[in-house]
Amino acid sequence: MTFEESRAQFPVLERYAYLNAGTNGPLARATVAAIDAQNARDLVEGRSGREYFEVMLELRETVRVGIAGVIGVAPASLALTDSTTRGCALVLAGLGLTGEDEVITTDQEHFGLTGPLYATGARVVIVDADEGAIARAVTPRTKLVATSHVLWTTGRRLDLQRVRAETGVPVLADGAQSAGAIPPDVGAVDFYTVSAQKWLCGPESTGALYVADPERLRVKSPSYMSQDSYEASGAFVPKEGAKRFDSGWIPVASLRGLAAALATRPEWCYDHAAAAAARCHELLGEVVEVVTPPGHSTLVSFRPNGDPTALVSSLHSAGVVVRELPGRNLVRASVGWWTSDDDLDRLRAGLV
Amino acid sequence: MTFEESRAQFPVLERYAYLNAGTNGPLARATVAAIDAQNARDLVEGRSGREYFEVMLELRETVRVGIAGVIGVAPASLALTDSTTRGCALVLAGLGLTGEDEVITTDQEHFGLTGPLYATGARVVIVDADEGAIARAVTPRTKLVATSHVLWTTGRRLDLQRVRAETGVPVLADGAQSAGAIPPDVGAVDFYTVSAQKWLCGPESTGALYVADPERLRVKSPSYMSQDSYEASGAFVPKEGAKRFDSGWIPVASLRGLAAALATRPEWCYDHAAAAAARCHELLGEVVEVVTPPGHSTLVSFRPNGDPTALVSSLHSAGVVVRELPGRNLVRASVGWWTSDDDLDRLRAGLV
Repeated sequence: MTFEESRAQFPVLERYAYLNAGTNGPLARATVAAIDAQNARDLVEGRSGREYFEVMLELRETVRVGIAGVIGVAPASLALTDSTTRGCALVLAGLGLTGEDEVITTDQEHFGLTGPLYATGARVVIVDADEGAIARAVTPRTKLVATSHVLWTTGRRLDLQRVRAETGVPVLADGAQSAGAIPPDVGAVDFYTVSAQKWLCGPESTGALYVADPERLRVKSPSYMSQDSYEASGAFVPKEGAKRFDSGWIPVASLRGLAAALATRPEWCYDHAAAAAARCHELLGEVVEVVTPPGHSTLVSFRPNGDPTALVSSLHSAGVVVRELPGRNLVRASVGWWTSDDDLDRLRAGLV
Repeated sequence: MTFEESRAQFPVLERYAYLNAGTNGPLARATVAAIDAQNARDLVEGRSGREYFEVMLELRETVRVGIAGVIGVAPASLALTDSTTRGCALVLAGLGLTGEDEVITTDQEHFGLTGPLYATGARVVIVDADEGAIARAVTPRTKLVATSHVLWTTGRRLDLQRVRAETGVPVLADGAQSAGAIPPDVGAVDFYTVSAQKWLCGPESTGALYVADPERLRVKSPSYMSQDSYEASGAFVPKEGAKRFDSGWIPVASLRGLAAALATRPEWCYDHAAAAAARCHELLGEVVEVVTPPGHSTLVSFRPNGDPTALVSSLHSAGVVVRELPGRNLVRASVGWWTSDDDLDRLRAGLV
């Protein structure tokens, strides 16, 4: 598929320079059509019966294989979740952290990671978002490094393989701003979360969690989807592999929509996205201070010359959709494989 | 609205005697139309921006008020969740149960309750699904009674007020088969879960959790939706009331659909459902052994004369949708305020 054909899948791009996949990706016609078709079926056929459940289970595997392919891991090591927040919570509960433990995180993380981290009761050690700073913070009490692959604020990418190697402790990576946006680099990382409604352009409340060694993490939040059999006491035999962390029912229509969304991705998606991000970086660098290091990610965060709230609002009026990073005096543009030169020119034009 | 007008909202009822709201309720045309309209909007407008978020937050409050009205509690004591499983897990995590504690449950509970219960590590004491048996099992180590309001297997209703009064310990009630089906009776119960895709006919993965005293339950699974403000460490100020237990993002289309579903409920819903359940009980009692005590709930479970799997399948071929309760030699019919005499006659006819 050519770039123009691929881009034409997303009606929102006909109206807007939509540069906010870091919040929610654009929806493709096929994605919404798949959701609508399932809802139309459920309206007249009902939502029960053997076939209904069998189709639902098959769709879960289709989606599992699809997301696993995107981040380059085995499907058996991937759990289906509804968010990166849930993925982080599953890992933290499974590790059984206590007040005696330390966890290292950076000062640039989303609440979806730090909220669950804080709630464990472990001592949260906050360092600069830098591989060296993380490694230097390790003590004998460190049980986990929890950080983003791409920081949602500055768009900086962390070298997770270096972090894993230099710290020697398990790494939980928040992949919200990386999975589907930049080439995968799960490698030796122990846990990796995926937010499917962002860079995978899926329905809301879809996502996944990669667990390198599922048998070594406790199942502390079992759902009906995560067990093979159970007794009256609730004692259960978990499913094989990472399915034991499947976090619950996913609406069948959402599974259909996500499967359709995964099918929209062209082979050249990473190359185009990186090139578009580089061009965005260059264009914006002429007029504002860009804080994202070049070549790191598909986010381009910048310090506007005036008030960021007013800028986001005036850009929206001009048909350019970006977001403010509240309290940081930053505005963030999200550049995808669907982003055109014209989108970027419109953003640039709105800044002067 | 007359019965015929109310019933005409659900296209599935034109084809089937759909008697499985205990799994998933029938969908109304207005519910699917509301979902479709939101998805159509998101397709062309995108899923971001201030207005998008403000509308989403308003819809959450609409739905919160609506569900609170159904179960007769204050909206401020209701958290929005995606399932009863999540509701149970939120309560159990918040109580901080340990291996030193005992929890009492019955031998007729769903894994959505017993799975999370077992995973706490507390000693799970299993008793007959009977108020007296529960009260007799209380010891000084008992920290919680966790049981259904209406048992998903036998359809027996437990007198939760009696359980609360006689045990004197906190009660977590699984409301999956009661909320929206029978008149509310939250009363002195401490925690009550709601599954909105069943008797409220909402979209999948919607639900709620009532918490009588939100300030006394710890927030162990914070989400972006549950905090008012936070620091880099993840330390956070929880929202007022039970919103602090809001379990995460709910798709805007699902909120629209649920709001529409809540608006389908006629005033006479409980009276009609009880009458239809009584009639179902009477009709089936002529040909099979009904295990549900009369007058308890909107479930009618029975022991078929032959193989339950074969019966469910032959009924389905005859346009009658019920479900088997695996491993129990039982079949369950779910009777709602939309159920007609003809639906019940068709079920009865399929049993002989």
